[in-house]
Amino acid sequence: MTDQPDFAKIRYVKRKVEDEAVAHAILDQGLVAHVGFVVDGRPMVIPMAYARDGKRLYIHGASKTRIIRKTGDLPMCLTVTHIDGLVVARSGFNHSANYRCCVVHGLARPVTDDAEFDHALQLITEHLLPNRYAEVRPVTAQERKATGVLALEIEAITVKVRSGPPVDEPEDQPLELWSGILPISTSLGRGVPDAFTPATMAEPASLSAARRKFAG
Amino acid sequence: MTDQPDFAKIRYVKRKVEDEAVAHAILDQGLVAHVGFVVDGRPMVIPMAYARDGKRLYIHGASKTRIIRKTGDLPMCLTVTHIDGLVVARSGFNHSANYRCCVVHGLARPVTDDAEFDHALQLITEHLLPNRYAEVRPVTAQERKATGVLALEIEAITVKVRSGPPVDEPEDQPLELWSGILPISTSLGRGVPDAFTPATMAEPASLSAARRKFAG
Repeated sequence: MTDQPDFAKIRYVKRKVEDEAVAHAILDQGLVAHVGFVVDGRPMVIPMAYARDGKRLYIHGASKTRIIRKTGDLPMCLTVTHIDGLVVARSGFNHSANYRCCVVHGLARPVTDDAEFDHALQLITEHLLPNRYAEVRPVTAQERKATGVLALEIEAITVKVRSGPPVDEPEDQPLELWSGILPISTSLGRGVPDAFTPATMAEPASLSAARRKFAG
Repeated sequence: MTDQPDFAKIRYVKRKVEDEAVAHAILDQGLVAHVGFVVDGRPMVIPMAYARDGKRLYIHGASKTRIIRKTGDLPMCLTVTHIDGLVVARSGFNHSANYRCCVVHGLARPVTDDAEFDHALQLITEHLLPNRYAEVRPVTAQERKATGVLALEIEAITVKVRSGPPVDEPEDQPLELWSGILPISTSLGRGVPDAFTPATMAEPASLSAARRKFAG
């Protein structure tokens, strides 16, 4: 627990939301996390798959990658952002975006317990494809060896949300200018089967579950 | 240029793309960047609007925020990721995502020159809404004072791209399991005007330009 920053000094003044349920909803609906760590004093940010398990997050990667090979606790920041729309205002200054963002700070530890390891891998796969594990063949010992899992215990969590119409200066409102929201949405399409999938085989349930989960 | 990491030690072994044009296309089509910096030795990752100008990126924020208040050069990592689909395989292990990701490392300097400052603000606004500046009223001196701009000179840039169908183990391919891609797309809808926009006013050209730019 060395190098602990003063989280109060990290400014998230505007649009801060104090509600753990909102934070968890933002995390649970994200397709990807941007994970930050420090390498030789410099910041590094990479996109990663993840899953939440209560107040803990799991991420995984190939055993040989730098972030995964680390032994001991690794200070980490994991951020999930949804962009919901562009805020189109009557001045450049008041342009903005509607978004939901969750920033998690904590220490990531390598997962070495076999049961926790398998549990985490299942959660990460099923974060994107609910109940997919019941549809596929089991993990092999070789695959376990090639994979590393980190557990990030949530020490501090910050949520910022912006929603609603632009907030123009009162003196700008009468200007003959279009102002409003340009909505942005993410959608998952129909599954495209690979060459080895029988032509008559229906999409598995995990795909429609993913479409429902991430629609928006 | 202190604390310069050995970028070669940062592992991006698989799926690395060596093509500046690809990197620039990924940056130019992103809605948001995840910007990493170090605070008291700990990593911090926040979503930010941005724009590219050749081999330089601009970000902006309120003058009072921690990242913007910094004087001098700030080591920074700026990452833009597009998630194009879920890779649905016959084993948990071979699940993946199709994505395009660009990771930029550099030093961010405060922009103090008035002409560069105005140029950067315009680029950031018009990254999301092409040619919007011609549609709105000009920036005021007070708004300039309330805004800070950082320029990130690109020192190192890494691109990773995954596309195409799942890569299952040969022995898994005959399994009676659905395998393929679940496509993910982002779309921008019709603009929703605010209460002060005349009912007969058409959407401005910047909105349809944004729809074309970010469709996919």
